[in-house]
Amino acid sequence: MLNVTVIGSGNVATHLITALSRAAGINLKQVMARRPEVLNGITDESLIVSNPAYLQDADIYIIAVSDNAVANVSVSLPFTGRLVVHTSGATPMQSLDSKNRRGVFYPLQTFSKSRNIDFSRVPLCLEAEDAQDYALLEQLAGTLSHTIHNVSSQQRKSLHVAAVFACNFSNHMYTLGSIICKDENLPFDILKPLIQETAAKIQELTPVQAQTGPAVRHDDKTVNSHLDYLTNDNLKAVYTLLTQSIQHIHG
Amino acid sequence: MLNVTVIGSGNVATHLITALSRAAGINLKQVMARRPEVLNGITDESLIVSNPAYLQDADIYIIAVSDNAVANVSVSLPFTGRLVVHTSGATPMQSLDSKNRRGVFYPLQTFSKSRNIDFSRVPLCLEAEDAQDYALLEQLAGTLSHTIHNVSSQQRKSLHVAAVFACNFSNHMYTLGSIICKDENLPFDILKPLIQETAAKIQELTPVQAQTGPAVRHDDKTVNSHLDYLTNDNLKAVYTLLTQSIQHIHG
Repeated sequence: MLNVTVIGSGNVATHLITALSRAAGINLKQVMARRPEVLNGITDESLIVSNPAYLQDADIYIIAVSDNAVANVSVSLPFTGRLVVHTSGATPMQSLDSKNRRGVFYPLQTFSKSRNIDFSRVPLCLEAEDAQDYALLEQLAGTLSHTIHNVSSQQRKSLHVAAVFACNFSNHMYTLGSIICKDENLPFDILKPLIQETAAKIQELTPVQAQTGPAVRHDDKTVNSHLDYLTNDNLKAVYTLLTQSIQHIHG
Repeated sequence: MLNVTVIGSGNVATHLITALSRAAGINLKQVMARRPEVLNGITDESLIVSNPAYLQDADIYIIAVSDNAVANVSVSLPFTGRLVVHTSGATPMQSLDSKNRRGVFYPLQTFSKSRNIDFSRVPLCLEAEDAQDYALLEQLAGTLSHTIHNVSSQQRKSLHVAAVFACNFSNHMYTLGSIICKDENLPFDILKPLIQETAAKIQELTPVQAQTGPAVRHDDKTVNSHLDYLTNDNLKAVYTLLTQSIQHIHG
């Protein structure tokens, strides 16, 4: 039985607390949160502390707070020599205070408060300073997910950038599509099957193989008529640059 | 029973031929293709003609060819007064030769040769010059799909632009993510659950609500560290513009 304590009460922390509470072989020891009321209904009130002084012994402490707060929280811990990990894609392992043994437990997924996440399908990206701690993280990860990757701080940084493109920017493309629909009184719902299929396609094809549309076909007539249609400067600039980028990659 | 003839042998034509062959209440009358060999295994050889002179009477002729060829194909038809529709998002209904009754039957989906499409979930965008022909298209569409929209040529143009953003450009974001992974010897597979969840999220949330990441948080530290990481000019330009665009939309 692994004793695990989670520090944080944001999106990642709450999804992690929920998953750990259900995981076989895991004892959710404590949860530390500055604002414990956020965790109402998510975990047993008796497990929650708001002051690091009340943290008890655990095998692993998971700091799941905003990127900018990771280092300070690790400094605030009143113990040494224990395994402390963070969940941030953007933060090197070395940002953690070296008074404790350090590691990273990065779930590569987009978390929203209002959506349940099946943790068993979330890729967990692990890093640790030594092999024994890595094994401990692997044991923890194995209780939650089928997909575990050994990812260095440098690789994790690139993965985080890749995720911005694949997730944040693709979602922004949905937003721009929805704005265009709204301007013509078309429901955004009409685009949803297309969006689903676009994401489903790359389970089988590479995204390079799956690329369709006027840019990759070098269909200048359609590209120009779309640019004429777009009167909004921002939409026009995005359309122009991404058309160039597609032609740059695909030739 | 509706007699329907399909003209074309590309992605849209072949998916349409397959769906029409199975649809209740539809008799696939003929298929016209310049290169009939492409349709091997897709439809009965005896239905295929390569010359417009051999086209028989049908209730609806569906021209499913490349955008640039729609007008010429409609001119080449040796009959008048029949219902002829095209499947193009980018082409006005008026591009069809006015010697026949005109309409549009635009399936809003991304089609690849190698993937089966469940037509029942494809939004079909219909337009016709008169109400009787529209009713006929609606009858045809109803045999294939649960989702039918009355979409004018002007609306369809905007929908086509919106689809470029929501489909072509979001797929390109997957491509750029995959390039970043490859540079660090990370498998693209690691991003797939994230991509699925990003697309699944907007079934419940609006894409504006679903937006996450450093740009919408105005997390300049992470944005700058990502820009430092990206040495490729194209990736850097896309990252910069889309970060600005997100902040422009979300404030």
